[in-house]
Amino acid sequence: MRLSTGKRTRLHRMLYEHGPANGTLMILPIDQGLEHGPVDFFDNPAAVDTDWIYRLAVEGRFSAIALHVGLAQRYHAAYAGRVPLVLKVNGKTSIPSDDEPISPLTSSVEDAVRLGADAVGYTLYVGSPAQDADILQCNEIRHDCERYGMPLVIWAYPRGAAIKAKGGQDSLYAVDYAARVALEVGADVIKLNQPKHNAATASQMPKPYDSMNPDELDALRRVVRSAGTCLVLVSGGSKLGDEDTIHKAHVAMQAGCVGLIFGRNMWQREWEEAMKMSGRMHELLKGYTQED
Amino acid sequence: MRLSTGKRTRLHRMLYEHGPANGTLMILPIDQGLEHGPVDFFDNPAAVDTDWIYRLAVEGRFSAIALHVGLAQRYHAAYAGRVPLVLKVNGKTSIPSDDEPISPLTSSVEDAVRLGADAVGYTLYVGSPAQDADILQCNEIRHDCERYGMPLVIWAYPRGAAIKAKGGQDSLYAVDYAARVALEVGADVIKLNQPKHNAATASQMPKPYDSMNPDELDALRRVVRSAGTCLVLVSGGSKLGDEDTIHKAHVAMQAGCVGLIFGRNMWQREWEEAMKMSGRMHELLKGYTQED
Amino acid sequence: MRLSTGKRTRLHRMLYEHGPANGTLMILPIDQGLEHGPVDFFDNPAAVDTDWIYRLAVEGRFSAIALHVGLAQRYHAAYAGRVPLVLKVNGKTSIPSDDEPISPLTSSVEDAVRLGADAVGYTLYVGSPAQDADILQCNEIRHDCERYGMPLVIWAYPRGAAIKAKGGQDSLYAVDYAARVALEVGADVIKLNQPKHNAATASQMPKPYDSMNPDELDALRRVVRSAGTCLVLVSGGSKLGDEDTIHKAHVAMQAGCVGLIFGRNMWQREWEEAMKMSGRMHELLKGYTQED
Amino acid sequence: MRLSTGKRTRLHRMLYEHGPANGTLMILPIDQGLEHGPVDFFDNPAAVDTDWIYRLAVEGRFSAIALHVGLAQRYHAAYAGRVPLVLKVNGKTSIPSDDEPISPLTSSVEDAVRLGADAVGYTLYVGSPAQDADILQCNEIRHDCERYGMPLVIWAYPRGAAIKAKGGQDSLYAVDYAARVALEVGADVIKLNQPKHNAATASQMPKPYDSMNPDELDALRRVVRSAGTCLVLVSGGSKLGDEDTIHKAHVAMQAGCVGLIFGRNMWQREWEEAMKMSGRMHELLKGYTQED
Amino acid sequence: MRLSTGKRTRLHRMLYEHGPANGTLMILPIDQGLEHGPVDFFDNPAAVDTDWIYRLAVEGRFSAIALHVGLAQRYHAAYAGRVPLVLKVNGKTSIPSDDEPISPLTSSVEDAVRLGADAVGYTLYVGSPAQDADILQCNEIRHDCERYGMPLVIWAYPRGAAIKAKGGQDSLYAVDYAARVALEVGADVIKLNQPKHNAATASQMPKPYDSMNPDELDALRRVVRSAGTCLVLVSGGSKLGDEDTIHKAHVAMQAGCVGLIFGRNMWQREWEEAMKMSGRMHELLKGYTQED
Repeated sequence: MRLSTGKRTRLHRMLYEHGPANGTLMILPIDQGLEHGPVDFFDNPAAVDTDWIYRLAVEGRFSAIALHVGLAQRYHAAYAGRVPLVLKVNGKTSIPSDDEPISPLTSSVEDAVRLGADAVGYTLYVGSPAQDADILQCNEIRHDCERYGMPLVIWAYPRGAAIKAKGGQDSLYAVDYAARVALEVGADVIKLNQPKHNAATASQMPKPYDSMNPDELDALRRVVRSAGTCLVLVSGGSKLGDEDTIHKAHVAMQAGCVGLIFGRNMWQREWEEAMKMSGRMHELLKGYTQED
Repeated sequence: MRLSTGKRTRLHRMLYEHGPANGTLMILPIDQGLEHGPVDFFDNPAAVDTDWIYRLAVEGRFSAIALHVGLAQRYHAAYAGRVPLVLKVNGKTSIPSDDEPISPLTSSVEDAVRLGADAVGYTLYVGSPAQDADILQCNEIRHDCERYGMPLVIWAYPRGAAIKAKGGQDSLYAVDYAARVALEVGADVIKLNQPKHNAATASQMPKPYDSMNPDELDALRRVVRSAGTCLVLVSGGSKLGDEDTIHKAHVAMQAGCVGLIFGRNMWQREWEEAMKMSGRMHELLKGYTQED
Repeated sequence: MRLSTGKRTRLHRMLYEHGPANGTLMILPIDQGLEHGPVDFFDNPAAVDTDWIYRLAVEGRFSAIALHVGLAQRYHAAYAGRVPLVLKVNGKTSIPSDDEPISPLTSSVEDAVRLGADAVGYTLYVGSPAQDADILQCNEIRHDCERYGMPLVIWAYPRGAAIKAKGGQDSLYAVDYAARVALEVGADVIKLNQPKHNAATASQMPKPYDSMNPDELDALRRVVRSAGTCLVLVSGGSKLGDEDTIHKAHVAMQAGCVGLIFGRNMWQREWEEAMKMSGRMHELLKGYTQED
Repeated sequence: MRLSTGKRTRLHRMLYEHGPANGTLMILPIDQGLEHGPVDFFDNPAAVDTDWIYRLAVEGRFSAIALHVGLAQRYHAAYAGRVPLVLKVNGKTSIPSDDEPISPLTSSVEDAVRLGADAVGYTLYVGSPAQDADILQCNEIRHDCERYGMPLVIWAYPRGAAIKAKGGQDSLYAVDYAARVALEVGADVIKLNQPKHNAATASQMPKPYDSMNPDELDALRRVVRSAGTCLVLVSGGSKLGDEDTIHKAHVAMQAGCVGLIFGRNMWQREWEEAMKMSGRMHELLKGYTQED
Repeated sequence: MRLSTGKRTRLHRMLYEHGPANGTLMILPIDQGLEHGPVDFFDNPAAVDTDWIYRLAVEGRFSAIALHVGLAQRYHAAYAGRVPLVLKVNGKTSIPSDDEPISPLTSSVEDAVRLGADAVGYTLYVGSPAQDADILQCNEIRHDCERYGMPLVIWAYPRGAAIKAKGGQDSLYAVDYAARVALEVGADVIKLNQPKHNAATASQMPKPYDSMNPDELDALRRVVRSAGTCLVLVSGGSKLGDEDTIHKAHVAMQAGCVGLIFGRNMWQREWEEAMKMSGRMHELLKGYTQED
């Protein structure tokens, strides 16, 4: 990758100085309180305390923690230097309709610089009828990232009424398109959901996706290819059983992803379970060392 | 709390130099003239005169008074230094439909600095279909608060058509979510309404809230927990009888709130009654001293 | 009033150096060409010539003339220093629907400074579904007024679909609310229409207004009280007979207003009649001297 | 007129140094390619070449040529100094619905300064439901005109659904109102269409216009009066026969206009015919000399 | 052409230092990943790798490559100086409805300067109901192009509901109008689709287009004429057979275009085929040398 000195320095910190530190990434996201509400903490009530999450990030040896400015300002100082910060700069609630979604800014790249962050995260709702405003807002963030040497992680999420009508947000069509859009608009790292085949809605996808049905590994490989030379992270999504979680991580790494960004699959487990899962992730990621 | 020097200085003034001065807060809000109209002054016509409200704030030994720039500019000077000012920087009337509410700015953080305020108040309509514009506007205020060391009090109010459809603005679902959103977007202090169980609409709440029915203290404790380390104030809402008012305050403090922001329950009482109620609040708050 | 030096200086010019010069105000507005079109000049065709209006303002010894930048730039110079200028900074036509009204800016506070104005006038459509944009725009004007020491006169006009549905723009409910809003958002002077009881629509007003029916003097007194310490001007509205005009002025002053802002009731009269009416206004205002 | 030195200098150039040079104006507009498309050049294909239009402007001795930045940048240099430039700073296509029209900016007053223009042209769609944005945008242009001493020519065009419903864009009601609006918002020169009586729609006009039917000269005189001391130009509109064109020009000058802005009536004629028509215009305008 | 030194220098690089280098242009666009999604790479999977495209641009001796900032930042450095860059500064996905299209900015003219680009590309959806925002945004890009001496290539694309209703995006009416609009708003180079006669929808075109049916060469000549002195590029559109591709190129050059901007017709061919096609294009363009 040809990156500016600032971006290279910050990415290096996440890739080679924290977490597995072998060129893979294991990021702990905790923006679900805004996106889904406190309900996500019901299974493991300890997780409503961001301090608990931070301890997990540090003791579970994550490459970075990803959250909004409110949490970063209140909780990060106690862990400063011990886990890199990905400042999530936009977000929204799930309360009103998701037909024309856009996530407004909750902070700025300058906030990220001030807080010592090593990257910013931006949610781009690919295919939303509000894409005009979304891409424009993303462009402003990208511009500031360029200015400050801040890596840009794009949460490339297909969403909105048109996506629903064309096979849904997890369809190969949607995820594949989203990966490419993130590449084109200037992501350094792309966070994606694994595409899932849904027999009930497959025929709604545009041609020729409607007649394609690759296995999960091939599907993800396609998507990774569409992301070009961007680093790709796979989201964990809602909580899975232990083996399913590990399987998902395995597929991601086999498909060529740089790592994992699993939130609920980490902190919806109790402490010991979460630490155990984090250990298994480390074990798995060891097998995918990328030279510096 | 890890706060900037400016925020710490200003919060200290409200927590330890005015009002109960024991780490609790007792704030007198007078923005109802904008939010509801002069009708709120009909029960106690003296209250239409902001000077009367100011005398109540000073003689009733409140931690701060909260109002809009028009009132602050015309009435605060006579009481400057005797009661801290929370400048309410946005608001709206209740005249048009409340389906997609947003409160436009009526002043700025710079106005707050100019007027010697110790905090600003921002109403965030959590869950409003206009959340895009609202969160964005809130972000600008938060940014200025950071810049000037001004504490940010978020009026975290669930509102709008989707909230109405999901159990209403006082449901545990709505208030709990609102508390978390305020934390995530960077509040220092969060003003909330006490959640109320409504048997008629409980089933409209998303799972698992639809099957929960904690008692009022547990419900508020949950919400306080969702607010993380933010200080939480409970609103008074419309006027209650004396004992109900005290009970509400009692529940709030038991649940871990930092204090009370009761308006109509203060100034819709005549002078002697209002002073008496203020005295009882002081008495109650004495029991919740927080070391500096 | 506690006002900045600039605001005080300029208000003093209107209150004590021009017009009745006894602390009352008699302002001549001529923005109806924009608001209603040339039709307002049909009864007295001379008035289409702004020069004629200016002569009336000067020879009729008005406290100020209120108009838009286009007229100010073309006609004021010839009368500079002889009559204070209130620059109306926003306005609109009456051609499209008035359901969601907002008046866009036609000039700026800086224009007012450049033109030597002693105040700016801003129309706020209280209760309009466009209140978000309107209050925000008003806030910007208020901010500039603060910066330049320019008094802010708010045309506090209830308007829009919701106002129509709740008793109409002249209802006590609407005018009372509008007065309070103007106070809260930072008016120095508030221009209001006299509330009118309309038996046909009274029941549409929110409680308890729907069951109130004070006489016209009491109604206006209530509104003046809701305006706090702001100076209140009563609009003339459409043309009345001589005695009705004087009666309206009389009620306004009895109710505690600072003065009158009568346009059509002045310049829809021919020269001699207009001068006579202006004389009678002066006579009346003499009785309401306010010490400097 | 009391105008700034810059405005006076530039207007003088058009009024007394080019064209008839006797205080009248004869302006050649060529923005129809944007407003109507290439179809306007079908009758005289030579006119699609802007160079041809420029030769007509120079050899036909026009006071100025009016066009958009794209044409000005590509074609004006060859004729610089030989014909003044009115830079049209906003425009739109006629393709989508005209129910809520507004013309976005295609250039700026600074572009006009850079290109050596002697005025800018702004289309204001009086009565459009988009008047909020339009008047605001016009205000910004006016402000820049003031700053740079650039005369502002307002194309005062009644348009939109409400205009259609109230008698149409050529009704006396609409044109009369438009003239006044342009005056109020700060035009130096106003471009208008001649009002036309339409028996079929006259009753749709608001009172008392619905019962008025002045002859064409009186109608235009009314409109000129509504424009105050602004200079008024009459548009040519779609192509007329020779005598009708001359008659229209004659009526305009008799009614007190400063001149003509005829486009299609010029360049939809072939060269010799166009030159002949330009000559007849010059002849006519000689009779309306205004002393400098 | 009278162009600024910067624009002249950069255009010269594309016209006389790269590609055919004889005053014609052969540009390789690769923005389809954003506009259409990865599906466009299915026929030739190698093309999903932008590096492959770059090799084609260099070895196929193109005048320039046109793409978005994300691709430019990641892939251009390795080929810097060997192929000029046209930075595409706006774009959108094809997922939501195309009834009111507008392409938001994905980068800026300053990005283009920073990346050493020789032009920027802007998509203007002529006739879109969103033309207000589109023309305005285009104006800002044009202004920055002027400031930095950056040539502006306008993708002049008729689109949106009104275009569909008036004969479609490939109709002569639509393409002809689009060419003129691009000229008027300040394009240096205009990218167009060849107009196509569609008997089924011809009657929907406005008069007199509805009764016109020139052959394809005449049709394109008309359009080129409407573009004035702007340079015109013809798009390749979806993939054609070899002879049809060459025929399209031939017609374009015969009609007076400066060159070709064929994407899918290049990189949807495998390497050898693509190189062969590029060779044939060079051969053809040799016949249209324009002196420097």
